[in-house]
Amino acid sequence: MTGPLCHTLCVIGPGLIGSSVLRRARQRPGLATRLIAADRDEAVCARVRELGLADEVTTDAVRAASEADIVMICVPVGAIPAVAAAVIPAMKPGAILTDVGSTRRSVVDGVRPFLRPDVPYVPAHPMAGTEHSGPDAGFATLFEDRWCLLTPPEDASTPEAVATIEALWHAMGARTRIMDVDHHDKICAIVSHVPHLLAFSICQTADSLATDLRSEVLDFAASGFRDFTRIAASDPTMWRDIFLHNREAVLEMLDRFRSDAETLAQAISEGDEATIVASIERGRRIRRSLIENRQA
Amino acid sequence: MTGPLCHTLCVIGPGLIGSSVLRRARQRPGLATRLIAADRDEAVCARVRELGLADEVTTDAVRAASEADIVMICVPVGAIPAVAAAVIPAMKPGAILTDVGSTRRSVVDGVRPFLRPDVPYVPAHPMAGTEHSGPDAGFATLFEDRWCLLTPPEDASTPEAVATIEALWHAMGARTRIMDVDHHDKICAIVSHVPHLLAFSICQTADSLATDLRSEVLDFAASGFRDFTRIAASDPTMWRDIFLHNREAVLEMLDRFRSDAETLAQAISEGDEATIVASIERGRRIRRSLIENRQA
Repeated sequence: MTGPLCHTLCVIGPGLIGSSVLRRARQRPGLATRLIAADRDEAVCARVRELGLADEVTTDAVRAASEADIVMICVPVGAIPAVAAAVIPAMKPGAILTDVGSTRRSVVDGVRPFLRPDVPYVPAHPMAGTEHSGPDAGFATLFEDRWCLLTPPEDASTPEAVATIEALWHAMGARTRIMDVDHHDKICAIVSHVPHLLAFSICQTADSLATDLRSEVLDFAASGFRDFTRIAASDPTMWRDIFLHNREAVLEMLDRFRSDAETLAQAISEGDEATIVASIERGRRIRRSLIENRQA
Repeated sequence: MTGPLCHTLCVIGPGLIGSSVLRRARQRPGLATRLIAADRDEAVCARVRELGLADEVTTDAVRAASEADIVMICVPVGAIPAVAAAVIPAMKPGAILTDVGSTRRSVVDGVRPFLRPDVPYVPAHPMAGTEHSGPDAGFATLFEDRWCLLTPPEDASTPEAVATIEALWHAMGARTRIMDVDHHDKICAIVSHVPHLLAFSICQTADSLATDLRSEVLDFAASGFRDFTRIAASDPTMWRDIFLHNREAVLEMLDRFRSDAETLAQAISEGDEATIVASIERGRRIRRSLIENRQA
Protein backbone atom coordinates (compact mmCIF):
# COMPACT_ATOMS: atom_id res chain seq x y z
CA MET A 1 0.00 0.00 0.00
CA THR A 2 1.44 3.41 -0.91
CA GLY A 3 0.06 6.09 1.40
CA PRO A 4 -2.70 5.42 3.92
CA LEU A 5 -5.88 3.60 2.96
CA CYS A 6 -7.89 6.67 3.84
CA HIS A 7 -7.32 10.00 5.49
CA THR A 8 -10.07 9.97 8.11
CA LEU A 9 -11.83 6.89 9.47
CA CYS A 10 -14.95 7.52 11.52
CA VAL A 11 -16.28 4.75 13.79
CA ILE A 12 -19.82 5.30 15.03
CA GLY A 13 -20.47 3.14 18.11
CA PRO A 14 -17.07 2.26 19.65
CA GLY A 15 -18.25 -0.89 21.47
CA LEU A 16 -16.63 -4.33 21.34
CA ILE A 17 -16.28 -4.30 17.53
CA GLY A 18 -15.84 -0.56 16.97
CA SER A 19 -13.23 -0.10 19.68
CA SER A 20 -11.33 -3.14 18.39
CA VAL A 21 -11.23 -1.52 14.93
CA LEU A 22 -9.88 1.67 16.50
CA ARG A 23 -7.27 -0.20 18.54
CA ARG A 24 -6.03 -2.04 15.48
CA ALA A 25 -6.05 1.12 13.35
CA ARG A 26 -3.92 2.84 16.01
CA GLN A 27 -1.32 0.08 15.59
CA ARG A 28 -1.35 0.42 11.79
CA PRO A 29 -0.65 4.05 10.93
CA GLY A 30 -0.87 3.09 7.22
CA LEU A 31 -4.58 2.55 7.65
CA ALA A 32 -5.86 6.03 8.44
CA THR A 33 -4.12 9.25 9.41
CA ARG A 34 -6.98 10.38 11.59
CA LEU A 35 -9.44 8.42 13.72
CA ILE A 36 -12.77 9.80 14.91
CA ALA A 37 -15.07 7.95 17.30
CA ALA A 38 -18.69 9.00 17.72
CA ASP A 39 -21.23 7.78 20.25
CA ARG A 40 -24.50 9.30 21.36
CA ASP A 41 -23.69 8.31 24.96
CA GLU A 42 -21.42 10.90 26.61
CA ALA A 43 -20.19 8.30 29.15
CA VAL A 44 -19.01 6.03 26.34
CA CYS A 45 -17.26 9.01 24.71
CA ALA A 46 -15.53 9.85 27.99
CA ARG A 47 -14.30 6.28 28.35
CA VAL A 48 -13.05 6.17 24.74
CA ARG A 49 -11.15 9.40 25.44
CA GLU A 50 -9.63 7.92 28.61
CA LEU A 51 -8.57 4.85 26.67
CA GLY A 52 -7.03 7.10 24.01
CA LEU A 53 -8.64 5.14 21.18
CA ALA A 54 -9.19 8.02 18.72
CA ASP A 55 -7.84 11.43 17.74
CA GLU A 56 -11.27 12.90 18.29
CA VAL A 57 -14.27 11.66 20.21
CA THR A 58 -17.69 13.25 19.85
CA THR A 59 -21.40 12.74 20.45
CA ASP A 60 -22.05 14.44 17.10
CA ALA A 61 -22.03 11.55 14.63
CA VAL A 62 -23.24 13.75 11.76
CA ARG A 63 -20.34 16.18 12.00
CA ALA A 64 -17.90 13.29 12.52
CA ALA A 65 -19.20 11.57 9.39
CA SER A 66 -18.95 14.78 7.37
CA GLU A 67 -15.18 14.81 7.88
CA ALA A 68 -14.53 11.13 7.08
CA ASP A 69 -13.44 9.19 4.00
CA ILE A 70 -14.78 5.97 5.50
CA VAL A 71 -17.77 5.96 7.86
CA MET A 72 -18.12 2.67 9.71
CA ILE A 73 -21.36 2.15 11.62
CA CYS A 74 -20.80 -0.23 14.56
CA VAL A 75 -24.16 -0.11 16.33
CA PRO A 76 -26.66 -3.00 16.86
CA VAL A 77 -28.26 -3.95 13.53
CA GLY A 78 -31.66 -2.52 14.48
CA ALA A 79 -30.13 0.96 14.81
CA ILE A 80 -28.02 0.94 11.62
CA PRO A 81 -30.66 2.33 9.19
CA ALA A 82 -31.49 5.29 11.46
CA VAL A 83 -27.81 6.14 11.93
CA ALA A 84 -27.24 5.79 8.17
CA ALA A 85 -30.20 8.07 7.48
CA ALA A 86 -28.71 10.69 9.77
CA VAL A 87 -25.12 10.64 8.52
CA ILE A 88 -25.41 9.97 4.75
CA PRO A 89 -26.60 13.48 3.84
CA ALA A 90 -23.53 14.95 5.59
CA MET A 91 -20.96 12.63 3.96
CA LYS A 92 -18.37 13.87 1.45
CA PRO A 93 -18.88 12.84 -2.18
CA GLY A 94 -16.91 9.63 -2.76
CA ALA A 95 -16.67 8.79 0.92
CA ILE A 96 -17.52 5.13 1.66
CA LEU A 97 -20.27 3.97 4.00
CA THR A 98 -19.77 0.62 5.71
CA ASP A 99 -21.05 -1.18 8.79
CA VAL A 100 -20.36 -4.33 10.82
CA GLY A 101 -23.87 -5.78 11.19
CA SER A 102 -24.39 -9.51 11.78
CA THR A 103 -27.52 -9.63 9.60
CA ARG A 104 -27.69 -8.27 6.09
CA ARG A 105 -31.06 -8.39 4.29
CA SER A 106 -32.94 -6.15 6.73
CA VAL A 107 -30.00 -3.76 7.11
CA VAL A 108 -29.35 -3.42 3.37
CA ASP A 109 -33.06 -2.88 2.75
CA GLY A 110 -33.26 -0.43 5.64
CA VAL A 111 -30.27 1.64 4.50
CA ARG A 112 -31.07 1.61 0.77
CA PRO A 113 -33.67 4.46 0.74
CA PHE A 114 -31.09 6.86 2.22
CA LEU A 115 -28.18 6.03 -0.10
CA ARG A 116 -26.66 8.63 -2.44
CA PRO A 117 -25.21 7.75 -5.86
CA ASP A 118 -21.92 9.37 -4.84
CA VAL A 119 -21.63 7.45 -1.53
CA PRO A 120 -20.87 3.74 -2.16
CA TYR A 121 -22.15 1.35 0.50
CA VAL A 122 -20.13 -1.76 1.39
CA PRO A 123 -21.76 -3.69 4.26
CA ALA A 124 -19.32 -5.93 6.10
CA HIS A 125 -19.77 -8.55 8.81
CA PRO A 126 -16.64 -9.40 10.79
CA MET A 127 -17.31 -12.86 12.29
CA ALA A 128 -15.65 -12.21 15.58
CA GLY A 129 -16.78 -11.30 19.03
CA THR A 130 -16.78 -12.28 22.66
CA GLU A 131 -19.54 -12.36 25.25
CA HIS A 132 -18.36 -8.96 26.52
CA SER A 133 -19.46 -5.55 25.25
CA GLY A 134 -18.51 -1.87 25.42
CA PRO A 135 -15.30 0.04 24.63
CA ASP A 136 -13.33 -1.73 27.36
CA ALA A 137 -14.09 -5.15 25.85
CA GLY A 138 -12.32 -4.53 22.53
CA PHE A 139 -8.78 -5.59 21.62
CA ALA A 140 -6.57 -5.13 18.57
CA THR A 141 -6.32 -8.81 17.67
CA LEU A 142 -10.08 -9.55 17.77
CA PHE A 143 -10.24 -10.01 13.98
CA GLU A 144 -6.98 -11.89 13.54
CA ASP A 145 -7.58 -14.85 11.20
CA ARG A 146 -11.35 -14.43 11.41
CA TRP A 147 -13.62 -14.05 8.42
CA CYS A 148 -15.19 -10.77 7.39
CA LEU A 149 -18.11 -11.27 4.98
CA LEU A 150 -18.82 -8.43 2.54
CA THR A 151 -22.25 -8.19 0.92
CA PRO A 152 -22.06 -5.13 -1.38
CA PRO A 153 -25.32 -4.45 -3.23
CA GLU A 154 -24.27 -4.24 -6.92
CA ASP A 155 -26.34 -1.14 -7.57
CA ALA A 156 -25.07 0.76 -4.55
CA SER A 157 -21.33 0.07 -4.42
CA THR A 158 -18.30 0.30 -6.68
CA PRO A 159 -15.44 -2.17 -7.22
CA GLU A 160 -13.03 0.47 -5.89
CA ALA A 161 -15.04 0.93 -2.68
CA VAL A 162 -15.26 -2.86 -2.19
CA ALA A 163 -11.49 -3.13 -2.69
CA THR A 164 -10.90 -0.40 -0.10
CA ILE A 165 -13.10 -2.06 2.53
CA GLU A 166 -11.48 -5.44 1.80
CA ALA A 167 -8.05 -3.84 2.30
CA LEU A 168 -9.26 -2.30 5.56
CA TRP A 169 -10.31 -5.71 6.89
CA HIS A 170 -7.10 -7.33 5.70
CA ALA A 171 -5.30 -4.66 7.72
CA MET A 172 -7.46 -5.74 10.67
CA GLY A 173 -6.01 -9.25 10.26
CA ALA A 174 -9.20 -10.75 8.81
CA ARG A 175 -9.83 -12.84 5.71
CA THR A 176 -12.61 -11.54 3.46
CA ARG A 177 -15.23 -13.17 1.28
CA ILE A 178 -17.83 -11.44 -0.89
CA MET A 179 -21.27 -13.03 -0.96
CA ASP A 180 -24.93 -12.59 -1.66
CA VAL A 181 -27.05 -10.93 1.05
CA ASP A 182 -29.58 -13.75 1.56
CA HIS A 183 -26.95 -16.48 1.37
CA HIS A 184 -25.09 -14.63 4.13
CA ASP A 185 -28.16 -14.56 6.35
CA LYS A 186 -28.79 -18.31 6.02
CA ILE A 187 -25.20 -19.23 6.82
CA CYS A 188 -25.13 -16.99 9.88
CA ALA A 189 -28.47 -18.35 11.07
CA ILE A 190 -27.04 -21.85 11.31
CA VAL A 191 -23.49 -21.13 12.48
CA SER A 192 -24.35 -18.43 14.98
CA HIS A 193 -27.93 -17.25 15.45
CA VAL A 194 -29.67 -20.58 16.12
CA PRO A 195 -26.84 -21.79 18.41
CA HIS A 196 -27.26 -18.57 20.41
CA LEU A 197 -31.03 -19.07 20.54
CA LEU A 198 -30.50 -22.58 21.94
CA ALA A 199 -27.99 -21.32 24.48
CA PHE A 200 -30.34 -18.56 25.68
CA SER A 201 -33.19 -21.07 25.93
CA ILE A 202 -31.35 -23.75 27.88
CA CYS A 203 -30.09 -21.15 30.34
CA GLN A 204 -33.66 -19.94 30.71
CA THR A 205 -34.79 -23.51 31.40
CA ALA A 206 -32.13 -23.88 34.09
CA ASP A 207 -33.10 -20.53 35.57
CA SER A 208 -36.73 -21.60 35.91
CA LEU A 209 -36.05 -24.84 37.82
CA ALA A 210 -37.31 -25.23 41.37
CA THR A 211 -34.99 -23.55 43.85
CA ASP A 212 -33.29 -26.69 45.17
CA LEU A 213 -32.53 -28.03 41.70
CA ARG A 214 -31.48 -24.60 40.44
CA SER A 215 -28.88 -24.08 43.14
CA GLU A 216 -27.41 -27.50 42.46
CA VAL A 217 -27.40 -26.88 38.73
CA LEU A 218 -25.19 -23.90 39.52
CA ASP A 219 -22.98 -26.05 41.75
CA PHE A 220 -22.55 -28.80 39.25
CA ALA A 221 -22.58 -27.02 35.90
CA ALA A 222 -20.49 -29.40 33.83
CA SER A 223 -18.46 -28.32 30.86
CA GLY A 224 -21.33 -28.68 28.38
CA PHE A 225 -23.51 -26.28 30.30
CA ARG A 226 -20.66 -23.85 30.99
CA ASP A 227 -20.08 -23.47 27.24
CA PHE A 228 -23.77 -22.71 26.79
CA THR A 229 -23.80 -20.08 29.51
CA ARG A 230 -20.74 -18.44 27.98
CA ILE A 231 -22.57 -18.09 24.68
CA ALA A 232 -25.70 -16.93 26.49
CA ALA A 233 -23.82 -14.11 28.24
CA SER A 234 -23.77 -11.98 25.07
CA ASP A 235 -25.32 -8.52 24.77
CA PRO A 236 -29.17 -8.66 24.88
CA THR A 237 -29.83 -5.64 22.61
CA MET A 238 -27.47 -6.89 19.96
CA TRP A 239 -29.07 -10.33 20.00
CA ARG A 240 -32.62 -9.04 20.11
CA ASP A 241 -31.82 -7.13 16.93
CA ILE A 242 -30.09 -10.07 15.26
CA PHE A 243 -33.04 -12.38 15.91
CA LEU A 244 -35.56 -9.82 14.67
CA HIS A 245 -33.51 -8.75 11.67
CA ASN A 246 -32.71 -12.26 10.51
CA ARG A 247 -36.09 -13.59 11.54
CA GLU A 248 -36.85 -15.56 8.40
CA ALA A 249 -33.55 -17.45 8.15
CA VAL A 250 -33.41 -18.04 11.93
CA LEU A 251 -36.92 -19.51 12.02
CA GLU A 252 -36.22 -21.63 8.93
CA MET A 253 -33.02 -23.08 10.42
CA LEU A 254 -34.70 -23.48 13.81
CA ASP A 255 -37.41 -25.53 12.14
CA ARG A 256 -34.82 -27.83 10.63
CA PHE A 257 -33.07 -28.09 13.98
CA ARG A 258 -36.34 -28.81 15.76
CA SER A 259 -37.04 -31.68 13.43
CA ASP A 260 -33.55 -33.15 13.99
CA ALA A 261 -33.85 -32.75 17.77
CA GLU A 262 -37.31 -34.33 17.63
CA THR A 263 -35.91 -37.34 15.76
CA LEU A 264 -33.23 -37.80 18.40
CA ALA A 265 -35.72 -37.35 21.28
CA GLN A 266 -38.06 -39.86 19.68
CA ALA A 267 -35.21 -42.35 19.30
CA ILE A 268 -34.31 -41.90 22.98
CA SER A 269 -37.93 -42.32 23.98
CA GLU A 270 -38.22 -45.53 21.93
CA GLY A 271 -34.79 -46.90 22.82
CA ASP A 272 -33.78 -46.86 19.15
CA GLU A 273 -30.01 -47.28 19.52
CA ALA A 274 -29.14 -47.16 15.82
CA THR A 275 -30.81 -43.78 15.28
CA ILE A 276 -29.20 -42.32 18.41
CA VAL A 277 -25.73 -43.40 17.32
CA ALA A 278 -26.34 -42.16 13.76
CA SER A 279 -27.29 -38.70 15.13
CA ILE A 280 -24.21 -38.52 17.30
CA GLU A 281 -21.96 -39.72 14.46
CA ARG A 282 -23.20 -36.90 12.23
CA GLY A 283 -22.23 -34.41 14.89
CA ARG A 284 -18.75 -35.89 15.01
CA ARG A 285 -18.48 -35.82 11.24
CA ILE A 286 -19.11 -32.08 11.18
CA ARG A 287 -16.51 -31.67 13.88
CA ARG A 288 -13.94 -33.67 11.91
CA SER A 289 -14.66 -31.58 8.79
CA LEU A 290 -14.19 -28.45 10.86
CA ILE A 291 -10.84 -29.66 12.12
CA GLU A 292 -9.78 -30.58 8.58
CA ASN A 293 -10.81 -27.04 7.61
CA ARG A 294 -8.47 -25.76 10.32
CA GLN A 295 -11.33 -23.82 11.86
CA ALA A 296 -11.55 -25.72 15.13
CA MET B 1 -3.82 -40.86 55.86
CA THR B 2 -1.73 -43.52 57.58
CA GLY B 3 -0.89 -46.28 55.14
CA PRO B 4 -2.41 -46.50 51.69
CA LEU B 5 -6.15 -46.15 51.10
CA CYS B 6 -6.23 -49.68 49.74
CA HIS B 7 -3.78 -52.35 48.75
CA THR B 8 -4.98 -53.16 45.23
CA LEU B 9 -7.09 -50.88 43.01
CA CYS B 10 -8.56 -52.49 39.93
CA VAL B 11 -9.80 -50.26 37.10
CA ILE B 12 -11.99 -52.03 34.55
CA GLY B 13 -12.10 -50.03 31.30
CA PRO B 14 -9.02 -47.74 31.24
CA GLY B 15 -10.47 -45.14 28.84
CA LEU B 16 -10.55 -41.37 29.35
CA ILE B 17 -11.80 -41.63 32.95
CA GLY B 18 -10.21 -44.93 33.95
CA SER B 19 -6.77 -44.08 32.61
CA SER B 20 -6.92 -40.68 34.32
CA VAL B 21 -7.64 -42.43 37.63
CA LEU B 22 -4.63 -44.71 37.03
CA ARG B 23 -2.36 -41.78 36.11
CA ARG B 24 -3.33 -39.89 39.24
CA ALA B 25 -2.97 -43.00 41.40
CA ARG B 26 0.55 -43.48 40.02
CA GLN B 27 1.44 -39.99 41.24
CA ARG B 28 -0.01 -40.67 44.69
CA PRO B 29 1.63 -43.81 46.05
CA GLY B 30 -0.42 -43.36 49.23
CA LEU B 31 -3.54 -44.26 47.31
CA ALA B 32 -2.91 -47.86 46.34
CA THR B 33 0.19 -50.04 46.46
CA ARG B 34 -0.83 -52.00 43.38
CA LEU B 35 -2.77 -50.96 40.27
CA ILE B 36 -4.48 -53.43 37.93
CA ALA B 37 -6.12 -52.40 34.66
CA ALA B 38 -8.51 -54.73 32.86
CA ASP B 39 -10.03 -54.36 29.42
CA ARG B 40 -11.65 -56.94 27.18
CA ASP B 41 -9.89 -55.37 24.18
CA GLU B 42 -6.32 -56.69 23.85
CA ALA B 43 -5.30 -53.61 21.83
CA VAL B 44 -6.37 -51.34 24.70
CA CYS B 45 -4.44 -53.53 27.14
CA ALA B 46 -1.33 -53.32 24.95
CA ARG B 47 -1.57 -49.55 24.84
CA VAL B 48 -2.07 -49.29 28.62
CA ARG B 49 1.06 -51.44 29.03
CA GLU B 50 3.01 -49.20 26.68
CA LEU B 51 1.89 -46.16 28.62
CA GLY B 52 2.93 -47.87 31.86
CA LEU B 53 -0.30 -46.97 33.59
CA ALA B 54 -0.66 -50.04 35.83
CA ASP B 55 1.38 -52.73 37.56
CA GLU B 56 -0.62 -55.36 35.76
CA VAL B 57 -2.80 -55.21 32.67
CA THR B 58 -5.14 -58.03 31.71
CA THR B 59 -8.14 -58.95 29.58
CA ASP B 60 -9.40 -61.09 32.47
CA ALA B 61 -11.54 -58.67 34.48
CA VAL B 62 -12.84 -61.41 36.77
CA ARG B 63 -9.41 -62.48 37.95
CA ALA B 64 -8.31 -58.86 38.26
CA ALA B 65 -11.37 -58.07 40.41
CA SER B 66 -10.72 -61.11 42.61
CA GLU B 67 -7.40 -59.60 43.71
CA ALA B 68 -8.62 -56.06 44.42
CA ASP B 69 -9.75 -54.13 47.49
CA ILE B 70 -11.51 -51.57 45.32
CA VAL B 71 -13.01 -52.51 41.95
CA MET B 72 -13.83 -49.44 39.85
CA ILE B 73 -15.92 -50.07 36.74
CA CYS B 74 -15.16 -47.39 34.12
CA VAL B 75 -17.17 -48.63 31.11
CA PRO B 76 -20.14 -46.91 29.37
CA VAL B 77 -23.20 -46.97 31.64
CA GLY B 78 -25.03 -49.53 29.50
CA ALA B 79 -22.28 -52.07 30.11
CA ILE B 80 -21.87 -51.55 33.88
CA PRO B 81 -24.50 -54.08 35.10
CA ALA B 82 -23.08 -56.90 32.94
CA VAL B 83 -19.52 -56.20 34.11
CA ALA B 84 -20.74 -56.01 37.72
CA ALA B 85 -22.58 -59.32 37.32
CA ALA B 86 -19.38 -60.93 36.06
CA VAL B 87 -16.96 -59.59 38.67
CA ILE B 88 -19.01 -59.45 41.91
CA PRO B 89 -18.97 -63.24 42.54
CA ALA B 90 -15.17 -63.20 42.33
CA MET B 91 -14.62 -60.25 44.69
CA LYS B 92 -13.03 -60.60 48.13
CA PRO B 93 -15.37 -60.20 51.13
CA GLY B 94 -15.22 -56.55 52.23
CA ALA B 95 -13.84 -55.31 48.92
CA ILE B 96 -15.69 -52.22 47.60
CA LEU B 97 -17.44 -52.01 44.24
CA THR B 98 -17.63 -48.58 42.63
CA ASP B 99 -18.12 -47.14 39.15
CA VAL B 100 -17.95 -43.79 37.34
CA GLY B 101 -21.25 -43.78 35.42
CA SER B 102 -22.90 -40.51 34.35
CA THR B 103 -26.41 -41.83 35.05
CA ARG B 104 -27.49 -43.47 38.27
CA ARG B 105 -31.04 -44.85 38.49
CA SER B 106 -30.69 -47.40 35.68
CA VAL B 107 -27.18 -48.42 36.77
CA VAL B 108 -28.07 -48.84 40.44
CA ASP B 109 -31.16 -50.82 39.51
CA GLY B 110 -29.17 -52.89 37.01
CA VAL B 111 -26.37 -53.72 39.45
CA ARG B 112 -28.57 -54.37 42.49
CA PRO B 113 -29.60 -57.99 41.68
CA PHE B 114 -25.94 -59.03 41.61
CA LEU B 115 -24.82 -57.37 44.85
CA ARG B 116 -23.51 -59.38 47.80
CA PRO B 117 -24.07 -58.34 51.42
CA ASP B 118 -20.30 -58.43 51.99
CA VAL B 119 -19.45 -56.24 48.98
CA PRO B 120 -20.55 -52.63 49.56
CA TYR B 121 -21.45 -50.67 46.41
CA VAL B 122 -20.65 -46.94 46.19
CA PRO B 123 -21.55 -45.54 42.75
CA ALA B 124 -19.67 -42.35 41.91
CA HIS B 125 -19.96 -39.89 39.05
CA PRO B 126 -16.89 -37.68 38.47
CA MET B 127 -18.18 -34.64 36.56
CA ALA B 128 -15.20 -34.30 34.31
CA GLY B 129 -14.33 -35.25 30.79
CA THR B 130 -13.23 -34.02 27.41
CA GLU B 131 -14.47 -34.80 23.91
CA HIS B 132 -11.64 -37.35 23.56
CA SER B 133 -11.75 -41.01 24.55
CA GLY B 134 -9.42 -43.99 25.08
CA PRO B 135 -6.36 -44.55 27.29
CA ASP B 136 -4.32 -41.89 25.48
CA ALA B 137 -6.93 -39.23 26.25
CA GLY B 138 -6.59 -39.40 30.04
CA PHE B 139 -4.46 -37.13 32.22
CA ALA B 140 -3.71 -36.99 35.94
CA THR B 141 -5.33 -33.59 36.55
CA LEU B 142 -8.66 -34.36 34.85
CA PHE B 143 -10.55 -34.36 38.17
CA GLU B 144 -8.76 -31.40 39.78
CA ASP B 145 -11.39 -29.15 41.40
CA ARG B 146 -14.23 -30.98 39.68
CA TRP B 147 -17.20 -32.49 41.48
CA CYS B 148 -17.64 -36.20 42.04
CA LEU B 149 -21.22 -37.11 42.98
CA LEU B 150 -21.70 -40.19 45.13
CA THR B 151 -25.09 -41.90 45.20
CA PRO B 152 -24.69 -44.85 47.61
CA PRO B 153 -27.86 -46.95 48.01
CA GLU B 154 -28.43 -47.05 51.80
CA ASP B 155 -29.19 -50.77 51.79
CA ALA B 156 -26.14 -51.73 49.74
CA SER B 157 -23.30 -49.62 51.12
CA THR B 158 -21.64 -48.88 54.45
CA PRO B 159 -20.47 -45.56 55.92
CA GLU B 160 -16.91 -46.91 55.90
CA ALA B 161 -17.07 -47.81 52.22
CA VAL B 162 -18.53 -44.38 51.38
CA ALA B 163 -15.74 -42.72 53.36
CA THR B 164 -13.11 -44.74 51.48
CA ILE B 165 -14.51 -43.83 48.03
CA GLU B 166 -14.80 -40.16 49.09
CA ALA B 167 -11.14 -40.26 50.19
CA LEU B 168 -10.20 -41.83 46.86
CA TRP B 169 -11.84 -38.99 44.93
CA HIS B 170 -10.33 -36.37 47.21
CA ALA B 171 -6.96 -37.92 46.34
CA MET B 172 -7.94 -37.51 42.68
CA GLY B 173 -8.28 -33.77 43.37
CA ALA B 174 -12.09 -33.75 43.24
CA ARG B 175 -14.72 -32.37 45.60
CA THR B 176 -17.42 -34.85 46.61
CA ARG B 177 -21.13 -34.59 47.34
CA ILE B 178 -23.47 -37.37 48.38
CA MET B 179 -26.95 -37.28 46.89
CA ASP B 180 -30.10 -39.15 46.03
CA VAL B 181 -30.07 -41.25 42.86
CA ASP B 182 -33.04 -39.59 41.11
CA HIS B 183 -32.03 -36.09 42.13
CA HIS B 184 -28.62 -36.80 40.57
CA ASP B 185 -30.21 -37.85 37.29
CA LYS B 186 -32.34 -34.70 37.01
CA ILE B 187 -29.42 -32.38 37.69
CA CYS B 188 -27.22 -34.11 35.14
CA ALA B 189 -30.02 -34.06 32.57
CA ILE B 190 -30.10 -30.27 32.64
CA VAL B 191 -26.40 -29.44 33.10
CA SER B 192 -25.04 -32.02 30.73
CA HIS B 193 -27.34 -34.45 28.92
CA VAL B 194 -29.79 -32.02 27.31
CA PRO B 195 -26.97 -29.60 26.31
CA HIS B 196 -25.24 -32.52 24.59
CA LEU B 197 -28.48 -33.53 22.89
CA LEU B 198 -28.83 -29.98 21.52
CA ALA B 199 -25.23 -29.94 20.36
CA PHE B 200 -25.60 -33.28 18.55
CA SER B 201 -28.82 -32.06 16.92
CA ILE B 202 -27.52 -28.72 15.68
CA CYS B 203 -24.46 -30.41 14.20
CA GLN B 204 -26.78 -32.87 12.48
CA THR B 205 -28.80 -29.96 11.09
CA ALA B 206 -25.65 -28.36 9.72
CA ASP B 207 -24.53 -31.67 8.27
CA SER B 208 -27.79 -32.08 6.38
CA LEU B 209 -27.70 -28.68 4.65
CA ALA B 210 -27.42 -28.52 0.87
CA THR B 211 -23.82 -28.96 -0.26
CA ASP B 212 -23.08 -25.30 -1.05
CA LEU B 213 -24.42 -24.07 2.29
CA ARG B 214 -22.74 -26.91 4.19
CA SER B 215 -19.27 -26.14 2.87
CA GLU B 216 -19.67 -22.50 3.79
CA VAL B 217 -20.98 -23.39 7.22
CA LEU B 218 -17.67 -25.18 7.71
CA ASP B 219 -15.76 -22.18 6.39
CA PHE B 220 -17.50 -19.68 8.59
CA ALA B 221 -18.25 -21.60 11.76
CA ALA B 222 -18.31 -18.78 14.28
CA SER B 223 -17.45 -19.26 17.91
CA GLY B 224 -20.98 -20.25 18.92
CA PHE B 225 -21.03 -23.14 16.50
CA ARG B 226 -17.46 -24.21 17.28
CA ASP B 227 -18.40 -24.66 20.94
CA PHE B 228 -21.33 -26.83 19.90
CA THR B 229 -19.21 -29.02 17.65
CA ARG B 230 -16.67 -29.45 20.44
CA ILE B 231 -19.42 -30.78 22.73
CA ALA B 232 -20.80 -32.91 19.88
CA ALA B 233 -17.45 -34.62 19.30
CA SER B 234 -17.86 -36.82 22.40
CA ASP B 235 -17.91 -40.63 22.31
CA PRO B 236 -21.10 -41.99 20.61
CA THR B 237 -21.39 -45.20 22.65
CA MET B 238 -21.04 -43.37 25.92
CA TRP B 239 -23.68 -40.83 24.93
CA ARG B 240 -26.07 -43.39 23.46
CA ASP B 241 -25.98 -45.12 26.84
CA ILE B 242 -26.39 -41.91 28.81
CA PHE B 243 -29.44 -40.88 26.80
CA LEU B 244 -31.03 -44.32 27.10
CA HIS B 245 -30.17 -44.77 30.74
CA ASN B 246 -31.35 -41.35 31.84
CA ARG B 247 -34.24 -41.35 29.39
CA GLU B 248 -36.92 -40.11 31.75
CA ALA B 249 -35.05 -37.12 33.18
CA VAL B 250 -33.60 -36.18 29.76
CA LEU B 251 -37.02 -36.20 28.11
CA GLU B 252 -38.54 -34.24 31.01
CA MET B 253 -35.86 -31.53 30.86
CA LEU B 254 -35.98 -31.52 27.07
CA ASP B 255 -39.72 -30.84 27.27
CA ARG B 256 -39.10 -27.85 29.51
CA PHE B 257 -36.37 -26.63 27.18
CA ARG B 258 -38.61 -27.09 24.16
CA SER B 259 -41.27 -24.93 25.72
CA ASP B 260 -38.73 -22.18 26.54
CA ALA B 261 -37.26 -22.31 23.03
CA GLU B 262 -40.78 -22.22 21.57
CA THR B 263 -41.57 -19.09 23.58
CA LEU B 264 -38.44 -17.39 22.24
CA ALA B 265 -39.12 -18.52 18.65
CA GLN B 266 -42.70 -17.28 18.91
CA ALA B 267 -41.49 -13.92 20.20
CA ILE B 268 -39.03 -13.66 17.29
CA SER B 269 -41.76 -14.59 14.83
CA GLU B 270 -44.09 -11.94 16.29
CA GLY B 271 -41.43 -9.28 16.78
CA ASP B 272 -42.11 -9.24 20.53
CA GLU B 273 -39.01 -7.35 21.71
CA ALA B 274 -39.78 -7.46 25.43
CA THR B 275 -40.07 -11.25 25.54
CA ILE B 276 -36.88 -11.69 23.50
CA VAL B 277 -34.90 -9.44 25.83
CA ALA B 278 -36.39 -11.14 28.90
CA SER B 279 -35.29 -14.55 27.58
CA ILE B 280 -31.77 -13.34 26.92
CA GLU B 281 -31.56 -11.63 30.31
CA ARG B 282 -32.42 -14.89 32.07
CA GLY B 283 -29.56 -16.57 30.27
CA ARG B 284 -27.22 -13.85 31.47
CA ARG B 285 -28.53 -14.15 35.01
CA ILE B 286 -27.62 -17.85 35.15
CA ARG B 287 -24.18 -16.96 33.81
CA ARG B 288 -23.68 -14.31 36.49
CA SER B 289 -24.75 -16.77 39.19
CA LEU B 290 -22.28 -19.27 37.79
CA ILE B 291 -19.48 -16.74 37.95
CA GLU B 292 -20.45 -15.82 41.50
CA ASN B 293 -20.31 -19.54 42.29
CA ARG B 294 -16.75 -19.55 40.90
CA GLN B 295 -17.75 -22.29 38.50
CA ALA B 296 -17.34 -20.35 35.26
